[in-house]
Amino acid sequence: MTSQPIHPASQAVAPLYLGIDVGGTGMKVGVVDDVGKTLGFTAFPTEEPRGPADAMKRVAAASSELLASIGLSRSDIARVGLGTPGSQDIPKGMLIEPPNHPHWHHFPIVKCLEESIGIPVSFANDANAAAFGEFWVGTGAIYSSMVLLTLGTGVGGGIIIDNQLVVGHNSFGGECGHMIIDPRPDARLCVWGGGRGHLEAYTSASGVAQRAKEELAAGAASSLRDHAENLTTKMIYEAASAGDAFSLKVIDETADYLALGIATIVHTLDPGLIVLGGAMNFGGIASPVGLRFLTQIGQTFRKRSFEYVARGTKIEFASLGGDAGYLGAAGIARMEFKKLPT
Amino acid sequence: MTSQPIHPASQAVAPLYLGIDVGGTGMKVGVVDDVGKTLGFTAFPTEEPRGPADAMKRVAAASSELLASIGLSRSDIARVGLGTPGSQDIPKGMLIEPPNHPHWHHFPIVKCLEESIGIPVSFANDANAAAFGEFWVGTGAIYSSMVLLTLGTGVGGGIIIDNQLVVGHNSFGGECGHMIIDPRPDARLCVWGGGRGHLEAYTSASGVAQRAKEELAAGAASSLRDHAENLTTKMIYEAASAGDAFSLKVIDETADYLALGIATIVHTLDPGLIVLGGAMNFGGIASPVGLRFLTQIGQTFRKRSFEYVARGTKIEFASLGGDAGYLGAAGIARMEFKKLPT
Repeated sequence: MTSQPIHPASQAVAPLYLGIDVGGTGMKVGVVDDVGKTLGFTAFPTEEPRGPADAMKRVAAASSELLASIGLSRSDIARVGLGTPGSQDIPKGMLIEPPNHPHWHHFPIVKCLEESIGIPVSFANDANAAAFGEFWVGTGAIYSSMVLLTLGTGVGGGIIIDNQLVVGHNSFGGECGHMIIDPRPDARLCVWGGGRGHLEAYTSASGVAQRAKEELAAGAASSLRDHAENLTTKMIYEAASAGDAFSLKVIDETADYLALGIATIVHTLDPGLIVLGGAMNFGGIASPVGLRFLTQIGQTFRKRSFEYVARGTKIEFASLGGDAGYLGAAGIARMEFKKLPT
Repeated sequence: MTSQPIHPASQAVAPLYLGIDVGGTGMKVGVVDDVGKTLGFTAFPTEEPRGPADAMKRVAAASSELLASIGLSRSDIARVGLGTPGSQDIPKGMLIEPPNHPHWHHFPIVKCLEESIGIPVSFANDANAAAFGEFWVGTGAIYSSMVLLTLGTGVGGGIIIDNQLVVGHNSFGGECGHMIIDPRPDARLCVWGGGRGHLEAYTSASGVAQRAKEELAAGAASSLRDHAENLTTKMIYEAASAGDAFSLKVIDETADYLALGIATIVHTLDPGLIVLGGAMNFGGIASPVGLRFLTQIGQTFRKRSFEYVARGTKIEFASLGGDAGYLGAAGIARMEFKKLPT
């Protein structure tokens, strides 16, 4: 199920695109029209060990079935957008070594999907695709630049400057979780890749749980005291919602770390808008704890950055949830389709 | 004097541009052709207290004189590029509050220059203009993206991504000196603006001298021991060149801090090229100390960033020296001129 409303194909604005979001456990396919409306959606397991060629065949078959179910066929699709986890070589259409896809390394996935599906494919990093989705039809829709930070198991991101996605010279653009916010040799270790002092080590779900565990082990008073073993950010969120002062402090400190990273982004790129996506949003804007989290980020950000530029910068939660990836992949396909000579 | 060769106007490639670089003490004007060759150059004092209107009149008069001296006139110029220190509102052509130009605050400088000179003016931040100069005809000439860090009294910068200058939503793009590399509440204070833990506080000329002074005061052994009062990075460079171990250590540590900032830039923007400009280059690539500085930056950068992206990233010194500003201003005028509908 997508949380996007499904619009009838008869009211679609042509051209149409397929957006495909490949994750570690699941794959999503959406049929998306030229103004970003979803006409059809399907999702199914990645089954990573079966390998990328098998997966792309299943994507092609599922796409045909999905299109048929809404009275369309492959010939109605102008272009396909494919988002996958990195590392990648975007211009070559290659997967390099995505850490959660050990059976997919060094694979020409764009060529493979194009052969299976018979439609030209645009290729993107999954977090970059999510950023482009929020930029096209989500929180960033009225902006010309934005940076997305996705707060999940790790911290990912995507950067759009003056309507252009920053892919990067080595297809590594937008990996904002790996900003170095602490120079000390004993700074926290990164969840992925073993770097020290990276934003991700402090503000990802696993980094936040780790920080809380260490404080509980050191004797912090909290209703979570007896749950330190298998602590999750969901448990921290629930305890915070029930008024646990320790959990609130952990969330406030997470906001403070995040604000340092945001200050650095704003002082270098000055995008005007920072969007916070990913599962770790402490209930989002509708929750008192989520609202407190966002407020604390904004306060610390303003304290740590120049007033002139801080005043002209908004920080908001993402609005597309798990749909940002396929919508953004479709949006990237759209952008590349419109650039083609006619 | 510009260090650029002066080419005869008779061999110029049209259209032609004027590049103007406004500094705290001096202003530079260059006549630049469509492939970035300098046809004529002049420089004169800013005389800041006389105000911006007076300065722009003198720029217009000096430009006419310069053009006449090489057999050209204002009607030969397609567009003017003007670089000034920030803060600015680039789209509005306004100076906001440039700290070293107290008599120039909140002034419509583009309108003023256009009225004085009678040619359309493109407007840029001075460090962004320098970055664009290096990108157009300097170290970055064969790249499509690059980030310039200027190491002077402060640390400035400019970002070009996919051939486009990052101006920023608040005209604040490329202020890389204000990345936060140390989260501690007692981290070093920024030279300008009072922020804590900014890259500039560790790696600007004043930051480097300050770090060295503190260590000398704490008893470090060095040939500079008796000069701690009025220590400059030039003295540190000279002592390092003569083999002073303390001075070499200060330079190595400066390289290490800079490498952290570069790792963050590369992990977010992945530009493929980092260019180090500004006066504080320890003699540059031709000097053993400058070469050691660059080598140390590269080594620490590779240690602190992902191998895959580090391998695909170059770090080099700038090549245009103090000419980057007017050349880049001309380059920005050229870019905007070529985008105009014909």
